[in-house]
Amino acid sequence: MKFLKLLSLAFLCSTTVAAQVTDSMMLRQIYDVALMEGHSYKNLEHLCKQIGPRLSGSKNAQKAVEWSKKVMEDYGFDKVYLQEVMVPHWERGAKEVAYITEGSTKILIRIAALGGSIASPVGGITAKVVEVKNFEELRVMGESVKGKIVFFNRPFDARFFDTFEAYSGAVNQRGQGAVEAAKLGAVGVIVRSMTNIIDDNPHTGGMRYQEGVTKIPAAAISTKAAELLSQKLRSGNGSAIKLYFKQNCQTLPDALSYNVIGEIRGSVTPDNIITVGGHLDSWDLAEGAHDDGTGVTQSIEVLRIFKALKFKPQNTIRAVMFMNEENGLRGGAKYAELAKQNNEKHIAALESDEGGFTPRGFTIEDSPSALAHISKWKSLFEPYKVSDIEAGGSGSDLGPLKNAVPGIVLIGFKPDSQRYFDIHHASSDVFENVNKRELELGAASMASLIYLIDKYGAK
Amino acid sequence: MKFLKLLSLAFLCSTTVAAQVTDSMMLRQIYDVALMEGHSYKNLEHLCKQIGPRLSGSKNAQKAVEWSKKVMEDYGFDKVYLQEVMVPHWERGAKEVAYITEGSTKILIRIAALGGSIASPVGGITAKVVEVKNFEELRVMGESVKGKIVFFNRPFDARFFDTFEAYSGAVNQRGQGAVEAAKLGAVGVIVRSMTNIIDDNPHTGGMRYQEGVTKIPAAAISTKAAELLSQKLRSGNGSAIKLYFKQNCQTLPDALSYNVIGEIRGSVTPDNIITVGGHLDSWDLAEGAHDDGTGVTQSIEVLRIFKALKFKPQNTIRAVMFMNEENGLRGGAKYAELAKQNNEKHIAALESDEGGFTPRGFTIEDSPSALAHISKWKSLFEPYKVSDIEAGGSGSDLGPLKNAVPGIVLIGFKPDSQRYFDIHHASSDVFENVNKRELELGAASMASLIYLIDKYGAK
Repeated sequence: MKFLKLLSLAFLCSTTVAAQVTDSMMLRQIYDVALMEGHSYKNLEHLCKQIGPRLSGSKNAQKAVEWSKKVMEDYGFDKVYLQEVMVPHWERGAKEVAYITEGSTKILIRIAALGGSIASPVGGITAKVVEVKNFEELRVMGESVKGKIVFFNRPFDARFFDTFEAYSGAVNQRGQGAVEAAKLGAVGVIVRSMTNIIDDNPHTGGMRYQEGVTKIPAAAISTKAAELLSQKLRSGNGSAIKLYFKQNCQTLPDALSYNVIGEIRGSVTPDNIITVGGHLDSWDLAEGAHDDGTGVTQSIEVLRIFKALKFKPQNTIRAVMFMNEENGLRGGAKYAELAKQNNEKHIAALESDEGGFTPRGFTIEDSPSALAHISKWKSLFEPYKVSDIEAGGSGSDLGPLKNAVPGIVLIGFKPDSQRYFDIHHASSDVFENVNKRELELGAASMASLIYLIDKYGAK
Repeated sequence: MKFLKLLSLAFLCSTTVAAQVTDSMMLRQIYDVALMEGHSYKNLEHLCKQIGPRLSGSKNAQKAVEWSKKVMEDYGFDKVYLQEVMVPHWERGAKEVAYITEGSTKILIRIAALGGSIASPVGGITAKVVEVKNFEELRVMGESVKGKIVFFNRPFDARFFDTFEAYSGAVNQRGQGAVEAAKLGAVGVIVRSMTNIIDDNPHTGGMRYQEGVTKIPAAAISTKAAELLSQKLRSGNGSAIKLYFKQNCQTLPDALSYNVIGEIRGSVTPDNIITVGGHLDSWDLAEGAHDDGTGVTQSIEVLRIFKALKFKPQNTIRAVMFMNEENGLRGGAKYAELAKQNNEKHIAALESDEGGFTPRGFTIEDSPSALAHISKWKSLFEPYKVSDIEAGGSGSDLGPLKNAVPGIVLIGFKPDSQRYFDIHHASSDVFENVNKRELELGAASMASLIYLIDKYGAK
């Protein structure tokens, strides 16, 4: 009996070791294809330079739909198709104008309307400014805010190692600032750009209105201009300072758009689905290189690498280009809705929407058993220093899947976060700020994880 | 007896835990100072933008000596001084000219003389070109190389995760190529730039001659031009291809220069020294931002952070700006020579010379006991994801210390390597390509390690 146990243990060990050798060799091949003959970089160049900014509902968003569909068709994926989805259609219109007035002196500053904001009155707004760091300070000011522009100027907390935590700690000013200011009678809102650095690029982003609360125009101000404005307000002459701004944005009727999906059909259990995705839309100010051209081209690259290696997954692998992550999440919602409606079986979904930087790891959302299971593969990722497999959020587009498809494991791709908010939602989010090797290593890391999930499940 | 043992064990545990809490709090403070009120970025900006390229023996190198001395004096370090060292003095002279000729067609290409090379004849060289990947291929060609220009075109192997391994696998073409080609009668050498990317910046770097072998001019060619030249040579018309190049460099008599040293004197054992350093010289084509302005400003920042925190190290901590790492290593040799001559006691030395990118870890050179000792601090670095504490090389400037000061532990700072060779030794190594947070995290990681070594020793 003891002998048999030992024998079976020995057998178990040897097969485990054998499997590991095979897996480590497979990962090596995946990384080699990505690094030696990767396509993600040249695809990203096309998306950024030939198409460019692609806000939901825009002509460029439609171009991006058609282009990504064609790319996947040309790669010969088993099935490439579109999912119809109605998306918000907001347009910036003519470029914003803003200046600080100090008596007869005007200082031009750079702002950008927040996505979803209304325009200013046709002649612009001129008003005194109150600076606050947060909603508590605002509420203390009460009625004195009336008729003024509220200037939210809470910077990122630089102490967070993960810059997404700094973002989380500041972004409610952008999302909810207009509502909170309007409740007290403010006529406009100016929000410090959501970034670590001091420069002159305003960073746009989504904002919300609330039923029953007056809609007031809201704009992001560059951090350099925010520092200047704050300094002026605190100067002896602070009470004489006024701000002028004019923005010309509008919300048009919802537009028809699409999620774009490419599949490699599973060789054993084709009804079981593993999703890997990013979002195809971007803000209008930038090329949407890191946000989220990298996620899109990496997701396509995962399937392309599998084909290049003639690897036939057991389950169906889907690359999904979600539409409308930035200002509505309609694509993510539609994907989940159809998954539920069609009674699809989903094993896992992985999103890359934190930029195309050096891969550091993966975050597993709300699933301790998946975290434990996936953590067992850490040694396989060691040669590529993808070491941080931790509990955490996955991706905005994946959120709706949680309720729609119970049991699905949601995973976020986690690249190094230090540079992301330098360029996030700003005109500096361009192809030139993406490093080829970092992008390729990310694609390889994602492909490796999908390969392992396909073979061993996600939990 | 047993009870006493348990009691002492409990005491030991509690003090260990307490020490860890204190240490983790101290590291948190170090990172906070670096991230919230760091000076490394603005110091780097000065070094890059107000001084710029600073090859050994140049006026700018002298300016960098004076500037870094003054910076450390202004910070009020306990002692700031210079170490005299004679350095090579090589000058590029007028910009190189090079073109491919194909019949009557001339295609201008970008090259840069390698550091230490002789000039071409005054009228330039025109010759046929033989392309080789390595010295074996060259030797097989034998006499047929005579009178020709040898074109070394072995690219980086993209499969290495650590780009320094790709560099190691390619750099002998640059260092030794002229000697090997001259032995067979070649009249010049053109070497593919040492980089992963394809662009039009030639990357210079050091090369050697050998006594008894004819000196022939040697230059780096941009990777884009290398691809073009290779393609031309392989085309049907390949035998008609010639290359023209002219370079105007010269080696002047050795010049007087300096290592620049700042110290915080140890409060308990001031005769025991811990060194942290980078090199002050750079190649002439670039601002030397990542190579090695970042190492210089980070090393100064380590001491500045200690002062800002009013932390008094037990041992003397020295920030050393080595002179002449790039083309002679004379500063490193001098530092070791004087350490030996003065019978100094050195605990450890840490060099930052792999760029100012996100810190990934430290490499410990030839000391298993130090590796084991320092690895025990891994959990303290976990919040900052500085996880790779491994055996490996330290830094070129530290090498001479190994024999000069037996027992010293040599350590290399290891940032993420993906972007380094994009800009290494090229005109693109500028301040704008350094990320503030990445730089600051590096300085904090270095300060944290020095703090721990000061407290617990290096092995």
